[in-house]
Amino acid sequence: MLPKLTKPTLLLDAEKCRNNIRRMQLKAAAQKVVFRPHFKTHQSATIARWFAEGGTNKITVSSVSMARYFASHGWNDIMVAFPLNLAELHQFTKLSAEIRLSVVVENIEAIRALAASTIRAIDVYLKIDAGYHRTGVPVEDYDQVQQLIHAIDEQPSLRFRGFVVHNGHTYHVRSPQEVLDIHHRSVEALHKLRQAVRSKSGEVLISVGDTPSMSTVDDFSGVDEIRPGNFVFYDVMQQQIGACTYDNIAVALGCPVVAIHKQRNEIIIYGGAIHLSKESINDTDGTPIYGKIVSLTGDGWSSPWPDSYVKSLSQEHGIVRSIPEMINQISVGDFIGILPIHSCLTTHLMREMIEINGLHITTMQSLK
Amino acid sequence: MLPKLTKPTLLLDAEKCRNNIRRMQLKAAAQKVVFRPHFKTHQSATIARWFAEGGTNKITVSSVSMARYFASHGWNDIMVAFPLNLAELHQFTKLSAEIRLSVVVENIEAIRALAASTIRAIDVYLKIDAGYHRTGVPVEDYDQVQQLIHAIDEQPSLRFRGFVVHNGHTYHVRSPQEVLDIHHRSVEALHKLRQAVRSKSGEVLISVGDTPSMSTVDDFSGVDEIRPGNFVFYDVMQQQIGACTYDNIAVALGCPVVAIHKQRNEIIIYGGAIHLSKESINDTDGTPIYGKIVSLTGDGWSSPWPDSYVKSLSQEHGIVRSIPEMINQISVGDFIGILPIHSCLTTHLMREMIEINGLHITTMQSLK
Repeated sequence: MLPKLTKPTLLLDAEKCRNNIRRMQLKAAAQKVVFRPHFKTHQSATIARWFAEGGTNKITVSSVSMARYFASHGWNDIMVAFPLNLAELHQFTKLSAEIRLSVVVENIEAIRALAASTIRAIDVYLKIDAGYHRTGVPVEDYDQVQQLIHAIDEQPSLRFRGFVVHNGHTYHVRSPQEVLDIHHRSVEALHKLRQAVRSKSGEVLISVGDTPSMSTVDDFSGVDEIRPGNFVFYDVMQQQIGACTYDNIAVALGCPVVAIHKQRNEIIIYGGAIHLSKESINDTDGTPIYGKIVSLTGDGWSSPWPDSYVKSLSQEHGIVRSIPEMINQISVGDFIGILPIHSCLTTHLMREMIEINGLHITTMQSLK
Repeated sequence: MLPKLTKPTLLLDAEKCRNNIRRMQLKAAAQKVVFRPHFKTHQSATIARWFAEGGTNKITVSSVSMARYFASHGWNDIMVAFPLNLAELHQFTKLSAEIRLSVVVENIEAIRALAASTIRAIDVYLKIDAGYHRTGVPVEDYDQVQQLIHAIDEQPSLRFRGFVVHNGHTYHVRSPQEVLDIHHRSVEALHKLRQAVRSKSGEVLISVGDTPSMSTVDDFSGVDEIRPGNFVFYDVMQQQIGACTYDNIAVALGCPVVAIHKQRNEIIIYGGAIHLSKESINDTDGTPIYGKIVSLTGDGWSSPWPDSYVKSLSQEHGIVRSIPEMINQISVGDFIGILPIHSCLTTHLMREMIEINGLHITTMQSLK
């Protein structure tokens, strides 16, 4: 039973969340790939336990402070999937003495800094750019990749483990077929790269990331490890890409209605950019939207209302555009639910969640 | 002297900030309007003291929790400039017993709820919509305004004080003249409204808000109170509107450089949507930008580099597009500065700041 809310509150449907986790765990097991989920979406030791219950024991994080948080909750095989921040080398060194830590590098400066540090033994992955063009060595630049592998191989404290790729450009497509195409082209290019280079390591792993591909692809041939993150909650963006249905989305922001403007079919909520983030997507007609509207029920929330969305966000206000059927059943003081566009950012901002049975869930952001 | 940084850090130039505060205090004093600055931008008791040193003793906030934070730091005349959230009525009641609290309403439900609560005496302002179309009673709807004033006047615990307007549409224009036009049309319409309605209150105040108008307008005739907030730090959006110069911007996000891709004139920083927020503006050629690039110096930061901006943001990464002259002087491991598009959201996300002399400044977000 949903507890009484007083202000914008992130609601978690634990059953949907656990189903999302179980589905991905089973898929990885069936396909015989290592499952190393990214924990930056939930950032929560409680939700991490739900993964552990299904056998997960390797994880991915995006910062050394996130690695430290999960290490303090018993996780001891952690990849920091972010280009090494030299200014935090000391924190990496310290943590590498306590757990099995994997780092991701993409340049000689990071390799030299690791080698010069007091790290005893650390797993090093090369970040490869297979088309997203954010970070990484271009997948076709065999010479540069070979030079970096040599530089790693020369250092006794560094173990070259393989290639890490994040095909973030799957977030910009709007059909499962386009996602599949990106994934398959990327895996093919990584295989060619692996054949073209030599390493002292017996085995060169291929580790891939994004939730759209991991949700859409059924055949993981050629992949050794998967690192999706967002799938734990999903969101409206993933629904639009085709990676999930609305029914898979496990979080909604409960927001008080503070004003109703029937003449323009709008509701004003207490719930703004500091709660949802300013992430938007374009609806089918090109209108930017900042969230989809659901009704809160005793045990969760409804399907999204048609033609109903968050039209704009200020720091703490949101303007909801909806239809008379929805607006006529709402009064000032009621709460409505917003399905977030990007659940990672909303969860980070909200710092904690309430399960729809009333249980409180903290994240590493609750601690600061 | 700037301290050694290890990760994304919000830097504050206290001198610029104090000058921004002083300039607005002098302007309000010269124009004989009440100065009730909005504290949602900085959310900091330390920066609040800088206002107090210049004589400020009335403030505006955007939530009851922010009111409570500043009340606990000695502020005792606070307006919550947000449509009353009925679910937090108990917190309003409690606070109204401790300080002089002003609330903003725009509908009969809020007035009835206040009247039925145990509030002893509270100042009530009507939110008027003078063209922004977010919240408020339309400024031309004299009948509705008169009905709401009557409803307030009937309650012994409620004192009707006046009209509150926030012309947020000044944020969407890109020239000072357009800002002036919006302000003057709004004040004219509020005056007509004031002449058309009757209240038991002897005096009906006109309180206006936004930073673009308050920075641009020199003649505050017809206005009783001003409530700007963002001017304390300013940001790239205000520069683009014409409300400030780059030199007035008092905050910059210091970010580690983790990768350099010279072939595409890009730098990858540790600094993403969870640090800057995803607020963007369109540059003159229509490109969306998420921040402007400055070099960090021993005692602050440089002017923005030309043709240099944050091109895109992930959760923790930013991609900076720049020019060879800038990129050639940067190495992996260096820090660069980002002038935020929207300093309110960046400050909220960062939760704390470091003055360029090394002093640490907390906000109410540091406490949670």
